[in-house]
Amino acid sequence: MVERAAAIVGGGVIGGGWAARFLLMGWEVRVFDPDPEAERKINEVLANARRSLPGLSDVALPVEGRLSFHETMSSAVDGVSWIQESVPERLELKRKVYQTLQEHCRHDAVIGSSTSGFKPSELQGCAARPGQIVVTHPFNPVYLLPLVELVPSAQTDPAIVQSAKEILTSIGMHPLLVRAEIDAHIADRFLEAVWREALWLIKDGIATTQEIDDAIRYGFGLRWAQMGLFETYRIAGGEAGMRHFIEQFGPCLEWPWTKLMDVPELTDELIDKVADQSDTQSGQYTIRELERARDDNLVTILRGLKAQDWGAGKLLNAQDRRVEGAVRLPDDVSQPIVTVARAVPLDWTDYNGHMNEARYLQAFGDATDRMMALVGCDAAYIATGGSYFTAETHIRHLDEVHAGAQIRVETQVLSGAGKKMHLFHRMFEGERELATGEHMLIHVSLETRRASEPAAAVATTLARVAAAHAALPVPDGAGKAVGVR
Amino acid sequence: MVERAAAIVGGGVIGGGWAARFLLMGWEVRVFDPDPEAERKINEVLANARRSLPGLSDVALPVEGRLSFHETMSSAVDGVSWIQESVPERLELKRKVYQTLQEHCRHDAVIGSSTSGFKPSELQGCAARPGQIVVTHPFNPVYLLPLVELVPSAQTDPAIVQSAKEILTSIGMHPLLVRAEIDAHIADRFLEAVWREALWLIKDGIATTQEIDDAIRYGFGLRWAQMGLFETYRIAGGEAGMRHFIEQFGPCLEWPWTKLMDVPELTDELIDKVADQSDTQSGQYTIRELERARDDNLVTILRGLKAQDWGAGKLLNAQDRRVEGAVRLPDDVSQPIVTVARAVPLDWTDYNGHMNEARYLQAFGDATDRMMALVGCDAAYIATGGSYFTAETHIRHLDEVHAGAQIRVETQVLSGAGKKMHLFHRMFEGERELATGEHMLIHVSLETRRASEPAAAVATTLARVAAAHAALPVPDGAGKAVGVR
Repeated sequence: MVERAAAIVGGGVIGGGWAARFLLMGWEVRVFDPDPEAERKINEVLANARRSLPGLSDVALPVEGRLSFHETMSSAVDGVSWIQESVPERLELKRKVYQTLQEHCRHDAVIGSSTSGFKPSELQGCAARPGQIVVTHPFNPVYLLPLVELVPSAQTDPAIVQSAKEILTSIGMHPLLVRAEIDAHIADRFLEAVWREALWLIKDGIATTQEIDDAIRYGFGLRWAQMGLFETYRIAGGEAGMRHFIEQFGPCLEWPWTKLMDVPELTDELIDKVADQSDTQSGQYTIRELERARDDNLVTILRGLKAQDWGAGKLLNAQDRRVEGAVRLPDDVSQPIVTVARAVPLDWTDYNGHMNEARYLQAFGDATDRMMALVGCDAAYIATGGSYFTAETHIRHLDEVHAGAQIRVETQVLSGAGKKMHLFHRMFEGERELATGEHMLIHVSLETRRASEPAAAVATTLARVAAAHAALPVPDGAGKAVGVR
Repeated sequence: MVERAAAIVGGGVIGGGWAARFLLMGWEVRVFDPDPEAERKINEVLANARRSLPGLSDVALPVEGRLSFHETMSSAVDGVSWIQESVPERLELKRKVYQTLQEHCRHDAVIGSSTSGFKPSELQGCAARPGQIVVTHPFNPVYLLPLVELVPSAQTDPAIVQSAKEILTSIGMHPLLVRAEIDAHIADRFLEAVWREALWLIKDGIATTQEIDDAIRYGFGLRWAQMGLFETYRIAGGEAGMRHFIEQFGPCLEWPWTKLMDVPELTDELIDKVADQSDTQSGQYTIRELERARDDNLVTILRGLKAQDWGAGKLLNAQDRRVEGAVRLPDDVSQPIVTVARAVPLDWTDYNGHMNEARYLQAFGDATDRMMALVGCDAAYIATGGSYFTAETHIRHLDEVHAGAQIRVETQVLSGAGKKMHLFHRMFEGERELATGEHMLIHVSLETRRASEPAAAVATTLARVAAAHAALPVPDGAGKAVGVR
């Protein structure tokens, strides 16, 4: 089997999103799509993904995988461990695709369908090996949103479901195992219900597309982004709890509030009304501009949730830990130590795409945290009541850097004895030096908030690195005051 | 009329949220609620608001208003310009409240109802002055979420609607004027539809409360928080546009996807199922902990959207500009200039509530931006192709500061001539000095990215401030290297 190789069958926005996520997580990706525009379309999605996904991570992602376009389904699927089908929503077409690809693919490869409209048992229909087929329904943009609905049928092989779970998790997604197959799975049932209600509101002239979007994004949309429906309502129930909330809110269910007993007819007039209102609302932006704004916003929100270690941000932190593996001091400490390796995220830059002033210190602060952890002042040590606090910082800005750039911080210990740790960080993009940060840290007791001696194990390790680094030249710029060359 | 005074009639979570928003925006607030627990409940909401709302703003808010609790409705509403009714959802009770308060309140005061269940014409019923009554339906937490549905009936006085719009905007809310009164206004129609669908999914064992929340917060919840429904779907339509999207997605409307033709019966069994699942999902947190997590997350998301100047973040930036007013150099420049005055926001702190290292530089960077603007290097000047870039920074951390603290940065110009601007920022909480930042800036051409002379007007103003500040003592710590006392 070609490990970490995926075939993308159908290369529209969704297929392209899958391709981008697999590629940026280091997978080989093979695309089959008879559309002559497929290569252009996939490359557009990939360009969006390259500017947003790598920096969403706080660690360096694997080297991007190889992308190839194939003339035949057989060469695309040969030997791969994942096949993602995202062809148009026509059952006969999908079934035909499975028939062809099952003649050529491995029997233990996952065949995942992006379908929102079909149940897995419908897809499996007349397949040669139905057990291999499962619904893996993602959400646009696939390269940023972690949710994927994983829907097996009774016929799906449990080993395929397990394999799908593991692979989806490894590429940073959250496989939500749907307990029983139903039409539209879970999330789209909500989207459908809201969409219909929205059409009624527009049809009846109660609200425009803009007003409906404002009603969502200035209100409950902000709640749902971090807690969803039930955890939000749990709070509304207060100390009296969820039961109280349901008893209070529940009776409203029987009020004649919504018009969902009926379905609004999609007349030309209604379609015109929606399209015209949407033009008024968003027509000043091209679709490309809207995509970039959406991705900037999503990265910002997701990175904010990472800082809170909550919801989708908690998933992303777990993914960073998986990608990075164990953190330990290198055996050879004779050279400066790499303490940060990451892409500059979209939310670290100004409107021109240059990294903001304060984010240099954020990267140097991360480098300091890492250096502390490497000498033994890690979370477990800090929990015992000791830590290093930064007393002083001197930053020199030497060159600019843009969103998406791969940056690296190398750290030299200038001295490390007693209560002091004196560090010198140098930030690079490749060999280009971007900035330096000189930092004096003092070990403190977290109880008294005063200077204190570090534990012996920390002091010993720090002294060992400091002794090794003493042989290095004093870096350019160390020991200088502002304005002094 | 008592300008900027509001009466809160009914002081639960919603009334308390209104009280907190008015108070923190500098209004006098008078509460009437016969519940003996009202004062405790309002103070709990207020404590949450005080830790989250002030720092959401990037400028200092007005001094907090005075809060009082009243034994009679008449003393609460006497002379105020806003009355917010948030009593339980019983029409006869609400009508009785209006009857009493209209005997005592000003005729030009806005009477806003927090109702989600009644139309304004129903509320107005037998009121003495129906024209004064309007629905102003907010979303929890009222002190953070900007949305308020403003629903007049045909009888509501247009002057009251206009007054309501202006006052709601002035306290940082977004009044969404609903074009025609309908049951449940706009947002709750969506919430109702989703809630019913969610109950079906739980009842049928398709998903748990946790799985439903994950389906929302890992997927479309993140999209809706920033773009809502239609702008998101506009992107999905791609270059072919909204019309294409509807034509593609529309037919699904007639599929038998949802069960909304019927209403799930709220049996004890179903209530138990939901309550038990919610306990499993969120039972490890108290309601207070969930509230704080929610507010931390919302502040983080909202401040992220501010940085992108998008959606709810764009509203908040506009509110900051309104609160701050015009920015100009003081007439007397003989003393250091206040360049930052703000509360430390929740997203600037670590898990212990202390301000993070990098955020000191963010505040100093904001101080530098303000100093630049004050000498004429503002957005308009920068658009002409010149700006100052920071070359070097020296920060001394002198003392800690917590989330919510009011901080102030005072800036001294150490020198300002030719291409250089040499600044010294001192950060204070009250008289307690927290940190200093010494910064060397170089004027650059944004085209060549190389050093260049500033325009004459900027150079002249900067020289004037530098000359005045030359008479000030050299601040402690200026001109020092790291580790040098």
